[in-house]
Amino acid sequence: MTESATSELARHIRDVALIDQHVHGCWLTAGERSRFENALNEANTQPLADFDSAFDSQLGFALRKHCGPILGLPEHVDPKTYWEHRSQLGETELAERFLAAAGVTDWLVDTGIDSDVAGPAELSALSGGRAHEVVRLEQVAEQAAQAPGDYALAFQELLHQRMATAIGTKSILAYRGGFDGDLTEPSPAQVAQAAKRWRDCGGTRLSDRVLLRFGLHQALRLGKPLQLHIGFGDRDCDLHKTNPLYLLDFLRQSGETPIVLPHCYPYEREAGYLAQAFNNVFVDGGLTVNYLGARAPEFIGRLLELAPLRKIVYSSDGFGPAELHYLGAALWRRGIHRVLHGFVQSGDWAEADAIRVVDLIGHDNAARIYQLEQKGDQSMSKNS
Amino acid sequence: MTESATSELARHIRDVALIDQHVHGCWLTAGERSRFENALNEANTQPLADFDSAFDSQLGFALRKHCGPILGLPEHVDPKTYWEHRSQLGETELAERFLAAAGVTDWLVDTGIDSDVAGPAELSALSGGRAHEVVRLEQVAEQAAQAPGDYALAFQELLHQRMATAIGTKSILAYRGGFDGDLTEPSPAQVAQAAKRWRDCGGTRLSDRVLLRFGLHQALRLGKPLQLHIGFGDRDCDLHKTNPLYLLDFLRQSGETPIVLPHCYPYEREAGYLAQAFNNVFVDGGLTVNYLGARAPEFIGRLLELAPLRKIVYSSDGFGPAELHYLGAALWRRGIHRVLHGFVQSGDWAEADAIRVVDLIGHDNAARIYQLEQKGDQSMSKNS
Amino acid sequence: MTESATSELARHIRDVALIDQHVHGCWLTAGERSRFENALNEANTQPLADFDSAFDSQLGFALRKHCGPILGLPEHVDPKTYWEHRSQLGETELAERFLAAAGVTDWLVDTGIDSDVAGPAELSALSGGRAHEVVRLEQVAEQAAQAPGDYALAFQELLHQRMATAIGTKSILAYRGGFDGDLTEPSPAQVAQAAKRWRDCGGTRLSDRVLLRFGLHQALRLGKPLQLHIGFGDRDCDLHKTNPLYLLDFLRQSGETPIVLPHCYPYEREAGYLAQAFNNVFVDGGLTVNYLGARAPEFIGRLLELAPLRKIVYSSDGFGPAELHYLGAALWRRGIHRVLHGFVQSGDWAEADAIRVVDLIGHDNAARIYQLEQKGDQSMSKNS
Repeated sequence: MTESATSELARHIRDVALIDQHVHGCWLTAGERSRFENALNEANTQPLADFDSAFDSQLGFALRKHCGPILGLPEHVDPKTYWEHRSQLGETELAERFLAAAGVTDWLVDTGIDSDVAGPAELSALSGGRAHEVVRLEQVAEQAAQAPGDYALAFQELLHQRMATAIGTKSILAYRGGFDGDLTEPSPAQVAQAAKRWRDCGGTRLSDRVLLRFGLHQALRLGKPLQLHIGFGDRDCDLHKTNPLYLLDFLRQSGETPIVLPHCYPYEREAGYLAQAFNNVFVDGGLTVNYLGARAPEFIGRLLELAPLRKIVYSSDGFGPAELHYLGAALWRRGIHRVLHGFVQSGDWAEADAIRVVDLIGHDNAARIYQLEQKGDQSMSKNS
Repeated sequence: MTESATSELARHIRDVALIDQHVHGCWLTAGERSRFENALNEANTQPLADFDSAFDSQLGFALRKHCGPILGLPEHVDPKTYWEHRSQLGETELAERFLAAAGVTDWLVDTGIDSDVAGPAELSALSGGRAHEVVRLEQVAEQAAQAPGDYALAFQELLHQRMATAIGTKSILAYRGGFDGDLTEPSPAQVAQAAKRWRDCGGTRLSDRVLLRFGLHQALRLGKPLQLHIGFGDRDCDLHKTNPLYLLDFLRQSGETPIVLPHCYPYEREAGYLAQAFNNVFVDGGLTVNYLGARAPEFIGRLLELAPLRKIVYSSDGFGPAELHYLGAALWRRGIHRVLHGFVQSGDWAEADAIRVVDLIGHDNAARIYQLEQKGDQSMSKNS
Repeated sequence: MTESATSELARHIRDVALIDQHVHGCWLTAGERSRFENALNEANTQPLADFDSAFDSQLGFALRKHCGPILGLPEHVDPKTYWEHRSQLGETELAERFLAAAGVTDWLVDTGIDSDVAGPAELSALSGGRAHEVVRLEQVAEQAAQAPGDYALAFQELLHQRMATAIGTKSILAYRGGFDGDLTEPSPAQVAQAAKRWRDCGGTRLSDRVLLRFGLHQALRLGKPLQLHIGFGDRDCDLHKTNPLYLLDFLRQSGETPIVLPHCYPYEREAGYLAQAFNNVFVDGGLTVNYLGARAPEFIGRLLELAPLRKIVYSSDGFGPAELHYLGAALWRRGIHRVLHGFVQSGDWAEADAIRVVDLIGHDNAARIYQLEQKGDQSMSKNS
């Protein structure tokens, strides 16, 4: 932070403990450089072109700036040196360093990606923080399709089992056809019919609209927060069908169950509108903040437009390299400082309000939504 | 204004008299705090959640910053103190203070919301400025549905009666199905048929597409400016159907009648494009400026992209608390200063041009569009 | 450049030689002031309104700021003086001055607009740079419609003839129905049938979807870069149908042929996403940069979000007044400096990286995509 890094606001942002409300596991096993570089490109599902390098991107530059020093390397270290140094340490050591450096007390872990990464317990052990599971609805559906007996019943039993300890649900409807179209609750007969059709075809990757809608409404009934992937992700999703405004009818009938909209790019302004329009809607810029790097402050500023300040939460959406779990926090701290410091400098906001808003977004809002107990002191112990 | 508040540009912006080209009445009768807080949230149509407060938003922070001092309170005064002080004064006293402080010579009042607020005459008396009526087309339609005889004739008669003194028309097609779809003029037979169907069902809230189209084309024939609600509003509208680009075909056939696009968020860049593309299209960021508070300068900057500088106008869209009528002006002055001062500081614009553009947006463009007489000196008398 | 104009980054940006990867010819014959003013408004297809002036726009202000001095006039010179001075010089003299001042080594010239402007050879002679042709697919189609015999064969022969020397292709599908809908390759029978229908109707302006798709896939097979007009243009295009996200299915099947997305406003963030998602997709903000003037830095910043840094290229999209060929370069230099200088100042980027990115966007990426030979020294000889 180059501006006024010694202000009370700056110190508060540096030290504030975060709830990372949407994250995945980090790697635990060694891999090639190509695995690492592909993990620094979210949208591409193919190996990067020969002429390209993920280091030559906003994320790559941010990683060299912020992650280098955590490993004892200079800022802006060259990619080759960074990669070699990283390789020597191993994923467990990397995870311990980066997770601790993130200053996160609670990780809310979406366990729905089948991949060789840390689960909630491992993430907790590696980081020294608490971890809570978020259950992916489409995964439950795919398990129910393989279970014997009535599909709806199997889905409900599996979901309730997992939700005994889980803290919320997640849907990737964005990747399974998008939001455009009818999202009302299907009838039991429609569900049974669709389930039969799906099971007859093998019951593997869920894309049946009726069953996707069934899952969403089951989640609403639980009352626990439902996370809905919005916008930016890999190219398997039709990005234009993930505009959250297509959710308007669904939200109008969603009752009081909290619905959290993460990522959001390039629809963060639309998502902010929904957070103003519905008492149960919340927004989060995770993932996007990492990928925008030096441009993240502008994005964080746009998140702070229509969304009421008690409706915004923090996440990293880290997955794979533990750098991403840390970088999300580092870039968020940097970006929120740039934005709020600007508001205070211009006289638009009082500094005390800015500090309070840091607490709201950093942990208070998420603690309220997910009913997490907070410790008395929500600053990072190592700094306070 | 923290930067260069003593420059000629800064002084000119502070003193420039405004034409508020889209506004509603302010309250005249006392109300509860919940009425006040709900009036500070545009999108939500329900009571705010218990955990929420409209004071914790960009609008809330801006109100505490800018409106406090008008009532003799310090900047950033706490909500409780602000509310108590406000309650003691009463709505009439509040209106007199805030309307005068706005520095507005002319209020163009959309009278289409049935609510207990000041009408044009009262607004004029309270503010010391002039007030002019803008007639809402859907209201005329709903009156025509209740009138005897031929619907089209009744509509035309009612419209012409009101337009004898009114200065323009307004359509909320955005709230009655949005812009997507055919917007050509229907035939007399289609109108008669649709009117019969609507009257048979009670003829209350107009949502019939044929009759909405009929109203728009009647307004075009009048030649007086037609305001079309664009984008941001409450959640009854399907925001994605209010993208003004859906108006392209309508605009291509709209002739020379001025069409003014207010609000526009998050479509202000699309609206600016239309203002460049059509000689008869104009843009205005009213309402949005209030809700963005400390972020308003960025929005005002985006309004100053493709739109020609003679095609941009000012409004507050104030409705209810008189704070909003003032805040629109205060935030616009602040935001346009930030943006234009930046252009001048970087050497991109000459200061004399920036001053001229302030006059264009502040009053000259609106005076030309609505054929308003301007006084010789368009600065606020109290300051000049 | 007001900030740190003496830094190494500033000097590098001032001197860097550019490849203008999408441009049209400049005028060679004298014209009226109305021709000039209309050429400064991209979106409007009608004469400007009497009350309007293209000088009162961001482009107009930028022209007065940057082009005045090239003609020996002061910055921000008044429109009348500028116009009179310009008229005295004549188009050839203007072209020589402005093209040289642009600092461009290579012009990639879209020759598809039938208009009295310089062709590639003339542009090369006037500028002292190299010029390369980009062939417009819809023009080839319209020639094939008039040719005897099989349409598909005629198209292929004409295309291959022209591509013997041309460097890439261009499609204006954006103006011929937009991107929404099926963009797969049609069968030979479908092509033959559609061609017959079109020829029977005169075979003039191509709007047949089957034949547009045929052309695109022929271009893909060539392997040479295909430019696709995105977003901002004149009002004949339905801007909302030029959202590049509608190209997702087409891009998923496009193989390795480079596809370049120029202009992009207001979809530059969506285009950047596609550049991250597909190895063969590239973005370019030409045209938009000119029209945003003092706001161009913000746009250039948004182009530097999701797009990998090896996937961004430069163009002016100049057409008509030679001012536009120069202004694109002047505003790009100014904007990229503002943005990258900000990244360096805040410590987010190293200056050496910023300088390298200037080379990537300014010429290296385009040279790689179009397989252009670069001279050893890619700075402008007059400055280095």
